[in-house]
Amino acid sequence: MKIMNDSFLKTLRLEKTPYTPVWIMRQAGRYLPEYQQTRKNAGSFMDLCRNKNFATEVTLQPLDRYPLLDASILFSDILTIPDAMGLGLNFIHGEGPIFDKPLQNEQAVQALDIPSMDKLSYVFDAVKSIKNALNGRVPLIGFSGSPWTLATYMVEGQGGSDFLKIKKMAYERQDLIHHILKINAESVTQYLTEQIKSGVDAVMIFDSWGGALSHHEYSELSLNYMKVILDNLDILGYEHIPKIIFTKGGGQWIDQQIIARPDAIGLDWQTSLKKAREITNDKIALQGNMDPAILLGSDKKIEEEVKKVLDDYGRGEGHIFNLGHGITQFTDPDKVDLMLQTIREYSQQYH
Amino acid sequence: MKIMNDSFLKTLRLEKTPYTPVWIMRQAGRYLPEYQQTRKNAGSFMDLCRNKNFATEVTLQPLDRYPLLDASILFSDILTIPDAMGLGLNFIHGEGPIFDKPLQNEQAVQALDIPSMDKLSYVFDAVKSIKNALNGRVPLIGFSGSPWTLATYMVEGQGGSDFLKIKKMAYERQDLIHHILKINAESVTQYLTEQIKSGVDAVMIFDSWGGALSHHEYSELSLNYMKVILDNLDILGYEHIPKIIFTKGGGQWIDQQIIARPDAIGLDWQTSLKKAREITNDKIALQGNMDPAILLGSDKKIEEEVKKVLDDYGRGEGHIFNLGHGITQFTDPDKVDLMLQTIREYSQQYH
Repeated sequence: MKIMNDSFLKTLRLEKTPYTPVWIMRQAGRYLPEYQQTRKNAGSFMDLCRNKNFATEVTLQPLDRYPLLDASILFSDILTIPDAMGLGLNFIHGEGPIFDKPLQNEQAVQALDIPSMDKLSYVFDAVKSIKNALNGRVPLIGFSGSPWTLATYMVEGQGGSDFLKIKKMAYERQDLIHHILKINAESVTQYLTEQIKSGVDAVMIFDSWGGALSHHEYSELSLNYMKVILDNLDILGYEHIPKIIFTKGGGQWIDQQIIARPDAIGLDWQTSLKKAREITNDKIALQGNMDPAILLGSDKKIEEEVKKVLDDYGRGEGHIFNLGHGITQFTDPDKVDLMLQTIREYSQQYH
Repeated sequence: MKIMNDSFLKTLRLEKTPYTPVWIMRQAGRYLPEYQQTRKNAGSFMDLCRNKNFATEVTLQPLDRYPLLDASILFSDILTIPDAMGLGLNFIHGEGPIFDKPLQNEQAVQALDIPSMDKLSYVFDAVKSIKNALNGRVPLIGFSGSPWTLATYMVEGQGGSDFLKIKKMAYERQDLIHHILKINAESVTQYLTEQIKSGVDAVMIFDSWGGALSHHEYSELSLNYMKVILDNLDILGYEHIPKIIFTKGGGQWIDQQIIARPDAIGLDWQTSLKKAREITNDKIALQGNMDPAILLGSDKKIEEEVKKVLDDYGRGEGHIFNLGHGITQFTDPDKVDLMLQTIREYSQQYH
């Protein structure tokens, strides 16, 4: 099916567009009253993800509200794979995801295996349903967590800030961590392959916790395994599907990231797009990078910051506007309108 | 009083030393059984800080255990200033510091004032007592939180990860945030002045949360106020006291940090010392930057990583070895011995 608004895909191919395309991480989410309503109807967060009708409904909500969005993203969670591995995913209110059976000893690690993709069929069904509902309006982005990021949850049992359990494993028993990461990389490859077969137009790997590693360890424990996935997808015949990697807190390692040859690198607000562009040398697109907290500010501040981000990237193709992390639930939906209008108007001079 | 082991101070002046000096952030702390004992005797954490005898005892504990440490640091907390401002500091078990009366409205912000240094006399008394007990063994480092980092706790009421309250204030009411930051900068200047008068040999400003800001906002909201403090201390006649700034997560902004003209810049493990040194151009010392989690690893891993950090900095003066953040409470004290011995032996080839 031909995609009507293809500015996002064109930018990923570094082709000319009349303005800077934009989408928003977690654009379908709690800041939207219509999402809150669907969520209430669905039950739990995972109930929402597992029902293709609800997942389709919420994926399309931001597009209906904001005609200036240039891409949609599958509504799902990054932890579907470890859930399908049998680790028992739960969302505790106010505490985020928790696994009932984290990998806490060698036996559990050795018993780990690639999950059957049948267990994830609800995701692929959702992709098909969303693609159908989109009817070519904008591209659909598929996604997965990175092998390292999945491993942090699988070993820690939950999100965190110090990651002492998984780091202890990594620095004491290298063999165990690489066993997990290899299985995760193969699982993500199969998972993204099925998403592509079901219709997604681009894929993104969220490396939410790669930034917790040292510059010595990032390549070995996170980036290399993302590279395995990108390479495998190419070998499997999906070279034409654009691939985005995003290591939160990884803005110091762009020189390493370009080695994995993604089509785009996601950046958070700590990184200057101008400096990043000097490293990628216009060979790889950049996605980002306004601080989501700016949307809590005054209209004047939002306009100023949107312009700063666009000025920072400057003239030419290859920039996809986004926030540097998911939009916060405390955002006033009208502020998003202002952001989108400012991007559309101000960015045209640069194309 | 003449300081016997002055390798730390020499390195801050970029002078030649026979090996790379080292100290450890939170070297007096929970990983040491002797600290746990003193803490039990003292009562609460703040009871420990407020009693000069206990504070002296714990400050010296790591020096007694590890003869290879080259500096000591005042045992205190970064939140003593907002506590003295009357915000009501409490430490809730397992949750870290909480303020009873955070700055949640304009009235509270406008009522804020520089605290009387009398309220902080327990800190200066501790400095004098520690200096006396040290008897010139190694230098004593004094410290404070940065104006921005203090403000995050003062507005949020506690530590956090998103900092949405203070960012909302910063991006909605710039006047209020700058009012707080100005008062904090003047308070920190007075606080460090009194620490210097009481005998500290160097000062360090911990900017624990500056890294949460965007590259657009870091200078304006955090770095510029640290610069005000450094400049004021010079004007007050303390140019000879070395000054270290450390923005956790700020490794991308070294080019901005050098403008504040600190004697040393602290770095965490996300940043390559080699790259940092290319920017500071051997004009400013660098302090850091091993991941504290490495100390949970195998002996082999610890030795490898210590060497990697030293190799990364390479030949020449100006490197103070440290962790990239506080040592974790789960560290085996023997692992610290191994780290210190490896630093001492391996670093000599580079001097």
